[in-house]
Amino acid sequence: MKIGFIGVGIMGKSMVRNLMKAGYSVDIYTRTKHKVLDVIQEGAIWSDSIRACVKDKDVIITIVGYPHDVEEVYFAPGGILENAKAGAFLIDMTTNSPELAIRIYEEAEKNGLHALDAPVTGGDIGARDGSLTIMVGGDEDIYKQCVPIFEAMGSHIVYGGKAGNGQQTKMANQIAIAGTISAVCEALVYAETVGLDTETMVNTIKNGSAASTQLDSAAPKILQGDYSPGFFIKHFIKDMKIAAKEANSRGLKLGVLEEVLRMYSQLEDKGSGDLGTQALIKYYR
Amino acid sequence: MKIGFIGVGIMGKSMVRNLMKAGYSVDIYTRTKHKVLDVIQEGAIWSDSIRACVKDKDVIITIVGYPHDVEEVYFAPGGILENAKAGAFLIDMTTNSPELAIRIYEEAEKNGLHALDAPVTGGDIGARDGSLTIMVGGDEDIYKQCVPIFEAMGSHIVYGGKAGNGQQTKMANQIAIAGTISAVCEALVYAETVGLDTETMVNTIKNGSAASTQLDSAAPKILQGDYSPGFFIKHFIKDMKIAAKEANSRGLKLGVLEEVLRMYSQLEDKGSGDLGTQALIKYYR
Repeated sequence: MKIGFIGVGIMGKSMVRNLMKAGYSVDIYTRTKHKVLDVIQEGAIWSDSIRACVKDKDVIITIVGYPHDVEEVYFAPGGILENAKAGAFLIDMTTNSPELAIRIYEEAEKNGLHALDAPVTGGDIGARDGSLTIMVGGDEDIYKQCVPIFEAMGSHIVYGGKAGNGQQTKMANQIAIAGTISAVCEALVYAETVGLDTETMVNTIKNGSAASTQLDSAAPKILQGDYSPGFFIKHFIKDMKIAAKEANSRGLKLGVLEEVLRMYSQLEDKGSGDLGTQALIKYYR
Repeated sequence: MKIGFIGVGIMGKSMVRNLMKAGYSVDIYTRTKHKVLDVIQEGAIWSDSIRACVKDKDVIITIVGYPHDVEEVYFAPGGILENAKAGAFLIDMTTNSPELAIRIYEEAEKNGLHALDAPVTGGDIGARDGSLTIMVGGDEDIYKQCVPIFEAMGSHIVYGGKAGNGQQTKMANQIAIAGTISAVCEALVYAETVGLDTETMVNTIKNGSAASTQLDSAAPKILQGDYSPGFFIKHFIKDMKIAAKEANSRGLKLGVLEEVLRMYSQLEDKGSGDLGTQALIKYYR
């Protein structure tokens, strides 16, 4: 099975490596070739255009930045929908709007192609270790045919139902993270403000009802003043905007999500978009 | 060592049992005797008044409802401060305002008494199993002398520093819970609204970055429509109000805490104060 892979960033690079490790032939395309010389060295085949990358492939995987990037690689002239061969599987693993996932699915169908939306969680470490959670939307029979490919990249593969549902599951995940990271930051800044030893406080609450992965991962970084990105604020804002828009379009008001989005947007406006999400603490300080 | 125990509710009753199990003689006082006939049967000594309960005791433990209840049992005529014997340890385990904890500490000192604030987490199950987390504020040497008593009731005993710091640590814990439970409810109601299978969604996200004890404990109850109280909304509101007041008095704005408090208050106004905190989902639906 020949794979065309578009978008070879931090996540994509590890995913390409895991696909090759599983025995797949992988053609790659990304905007800046010099950043992927290492995986080319390791056996990935460089393509000079999206067209070249996808035209004779059985499976085309994309993991790019923003919805407008997804839109471009699929819909623009020279893009995937125009060039994929009949019957190909198109798998978008970008965290993307459910609406656009459905558009891709419908447009693919018209062209005799099969699209799945399959965003991931687990970050750079999960991508490297092949332990990503992959949330898949689309036709179930298409999903089943792609399971071996997903299993090369992730350890927790979940079928969420019709096209868009992979993205919707990811949105629910991001909504849960939004409230939880703000909870961690508010508890920490409160503790600081009232004069508690914050490390003792974290150790006290981290095994009880207030426990969370965000507390375990973000709090130590915050206490060390480490704002390096495990997950970029700018990308989290993208995700939260999609989720808020989806919710609003259905008349659902998510007050905490909106508050957290507002705070992060303010941080981004002040130039902190490239910091990790734990830098939310700066908003409060 | 003789203990006087005031406030024998769901939590207090289990704590009295664990103290007796550890070999302490425990006198009890609570508002309605008929509710504690079982522990009297088991060996607790009934007192008809606070005065009788505390007057010759080495240690006096309180775990009552609201700050005004704490204020009454300590400061009212016939109360603890008036009747405790010189040198007694006064341990308030109610979740109470740090401000009042400090007042008790200072007033106790004037009377030759030693006060600690020592709120708990772990709920009715933790109280029963003796696995509570106990967060203690006050003088360290007094704390050390009381450790064996705490160890009879809890498995995780943490000294947080000066008087009030036990309560402040508990406030940080409640702030972290507030954001996290709202995160869980927003993710769930979003999933429902966009038509996901909510159980699949929860199972997908519960081991990743969105994981939390609240997700593990509240989500299954919500999916089963079980709003019975593990922790009452009305008590959580009490705690959040104390935390918000403490934060505001220091010029600290906690936007998510305030939003969550607003939502719960609205539920309480509609008569849901006696439901469990997971019933926050009703606000969104």
